Amino acid sequence: MLTVNGRRYHKPKQTTVVVCVDGCEPDYVGQAVAAGQMPWMQATLVHGTALHAEGVIPSFTNPNNVSIVTGVPPSMHGICGNYLFDPETQREVMMNDPKWLRAPTIFAAMTQAGVSVAIITAKDKLRRLLGHGLQQGICFSAEKADQCNALEHGIEGVLELVDRPLPAVYSADLSEFVFASALALLRADRGGLKRPDILYLSTTDYIQHKYAPGSLEAHDFYRMLDQYLSELEAMGCVIAVTADHGMNAKIAMDGKPDVIYLQDWLDEAMGAGKVRAILPITDPYVVHHAALGSFATLYLQPGMDAMRLRERLQGLRGMERVLLKAEAALAFELPADRIGDLVCLSERFTVIGTSKTRHDLSGLDVPLRSHGGISEQRVPLIVNRAISGLDPNRRWRNFDAFDLALNHAQ
Amino acid sequence: MLTVNGRRYHKPKQTTVVVCVDGCEPDYVGQAVAAGQMPWMQATLVHGTALHAEGVIPSFTNPNNVSIVTGVPPSMHGICGNYLFDPETQREVMMNDPKWLRAPTIFAAMTQAGVSVAIITAKDKLRRLLGHGLQQGICFSAEKADQCNALEHGIEGVLELVDRPLPAVYSADLSEFVFASALALLRADRGGLKRPDILYLSTTDYIQHKYAPGSLEAHDFYRMLDQYLSELEAMGCVIAVTADHGMNAKIAMDGKPDVIYLQDWLDEAMGAGKVRAILPITDPYVVHHAALGSFATLYLQPGMDAMRLRERLQGLRGMERVLLKAEAALAFELPADRIGDLVCLSERFTVIGTSKTRHDLSGLDVPLRSHGGISEQRVPLIVNRAISGLDPNRRWRNFDAFDLALNHAQ
Repeated sequence: MLTVNGRRYHKPKQTTVVVCVDGCEPDYVGQAVAAGQMPWMQATLVHGTALHAEGVIPSFTNPNNVSIVTGVPPSMHGICGNYLFDPETQREVMMNDPKWLRAPTIFAAMTQAGVSVAIITAKDKLRRLLGHGLQQGICFSAEKADQCNALEHGIEGVLELVDRPLPAVYSADLSEFVFASALALLRADRGGLKRPDILYLSTTDYIQHKYAPGSLEAHDFYRMLDQYLSELEAMGCVIAVTADHGMNAKIAMDGKPDVIYLQDWLDEAMGAGKVRAILPITDPYVVHHAALGSFATLYLQPGMDAMRLRERLQGLRGMERVLLKAEAALAFELPADRIGDLVCLSERFTVIGTSKTRHDLSGLDVPLRSHGGISEQRVPLIVNRAISGLDPNRRWRNFDAFDLALNHAQ
Repeated sequence: MLTVNGRRYHKPKQTTVVVCVDGCEPDYVGQAVAAGQMPWMQATLVHGTALHAEGVIPSFTNPNNVSIVTGVPPSMHGICGNYLFDPETQREVMMNDPKWLRAPTIFAAMTQAGVSVAIITAKDKLRRLLGHGLQQGICFSAEKADQCNALEHGIEGVLELVDRPLPAVYSADLSEFVFASALALLRADRGGLKRPDILYLSTTDYIQHKYAPGSLEAHDFYRMLDQYLSELEAMGCVIAVTADHGMNAKIAMDGKPDVIYLQDWLDEAMGAGKVRAILPITDPYVVHHAALGSFATLYLQPGMDAMRLRERLQGLRGMERVLLKAEAALAFELPADRIGDLVCLSERFTVIGTSKTRHDLSGLDVPLRSHGGISEQRVPLIVNRAISGLDPNRRWRNFDAFDLALNHAQ
């Protein structure tokens, strides 16, 4: 057994696939199963293990993927957003660089123990974080599948291996490419590659940002997912399916995003530039959500009254909770040195922006759907093996996925 | 000015229509407006007044309709469900009878002051409560529009007047009949009827129980609603639109209702029959929700430890809040003598049942959608007149509708 970040994991006896379905609000699965779109899932929910779990807050992609692959919350691994304000340099910077990572991944430990690992992400932004410390093994993104080389990615010629063209970054196809790649890697006779013992597959929430549970477009996506999962099972894999976060409509009755433009409000209420609002959802891929999510953190100038400001923020329509730094660090297991003096979470239908002029809504061709808040914390945790003795009333976390898959399902 | 239940109301200067759109989760409006299905609403949200409001808990039809027409919460008007346990008689009884009503309606006061009133409901179950104390005026349901007589309903020959056949009780047509009746009543030359000064129109949530915001079926309903509202406006009416409650999917990942069968759990945990679980959603019309909602109240036998039971219930997956009687009465403005020792609210995707054998799910031909909890408390509050000086951050209630329509919009 290996110990990683204080948790113990068995090496896999069977090929083990953990899937993080980006933005997979459990209702997507429920509606698709009800509509007969997911026959594999329908059977798995009966014969396997079906739990509801909670992801980490902020309910964004990077903090949750890193939690899943380290088995611990952001307070331990350090990744609490895509984007942060670095008080040392007084600059707002991306958090994609592995230098921000404070905990080793399960993969790094497994490869050191001779287990072969393959990590396939939809977008490239996650790849370096997830693959950090990987001594050997495969780690690439569908987005840049055409640029893989043996040294950096542990594989080359991915497009030929998978036999699909490079997918567009804003597409359902980007996710499908992840699954098609996994199947290709598991076909042992291809390319002389070592068959992976552990696969981690992480998709993109392009579809979930656009289409609600029960819609035809969502059904198409989940039918595709179901088909690939059934093929992976047919190859004998132990499969755990979870998600980084859920997804909700974030619009007002006029059909437009229901936004609290927090920097504008702060500049008006506290004086221009006195408080800095940071949106950790910010990243280079914002067309489908315009950098609007339900989480913000605020940096106050020294001497300002955080308690009083909290009270005023708490009174804004659409604000669900406002916490002091220490409270937020405790409640959401966040690294206190990487969040501001206040943490703001907006409710299910509301998002937080900075200044109205800094958000380009022109890319939103359908009513906004987004995440980041408490209302998007609930995710599936499904394993294709029956596991006896689990307490469904326990607080399960998406970062229990590897524990279930490696320690209980085989 | 008239004073009703401590609130003051002007008599209408213009014909005033208050509409309670049953189950109108604000997202229905947002998605329909975004899809171009509600041109009148889209314009009204810009030129009129658009607020989000909270209904009362339990987020059911009767408590909320009665709140809207009395202007006060259940603690004052007494109606806290469709169904209650009467500790005096030790029997479970319907709460449809006006004998349970503890406050007069705005309509009763208005008719006494010579204002003509017409109340049109979709289902007949509401009619007697809403029409209680009406000295004169019109009060009928679409469901029993064929059985109206001058003595009881203040009108006869409704089918001829409206020129539509009697609608089916489980249909969108039942709601459309309500609006068609309102238009017919406002055409002054018909039947020598006195043109109403105040109309209260209350629809049924048949569509909302079946179809999600953004679906084609929901769009059809809201397009119909929009067309009637625009016709009412063209007749010069002041219109306020609100709702009794929202609506959410209440299913697990297998597509089936996600139910806490509370009576079964209590019988197992506490001993058979020791605690009685009452579901105030229960009424004779349960085909579309199988009497499954997100609110229950529990009656304990004397000497039982309510605090300890609360703690255990709070630990059940899907339970959002469990309150002692006094806490619930305070938090949700409920009549303490008409609720049990504990009040249980399940979360957004979960409903509470009694015993598994007592719920017939065979009528559910689509994945369950229901209400009753905190997650369905948010509703629209829209007026087709600009009202200046309103604070959008104030806690608005659906039972402010008559105050806005009569005191601020004309």
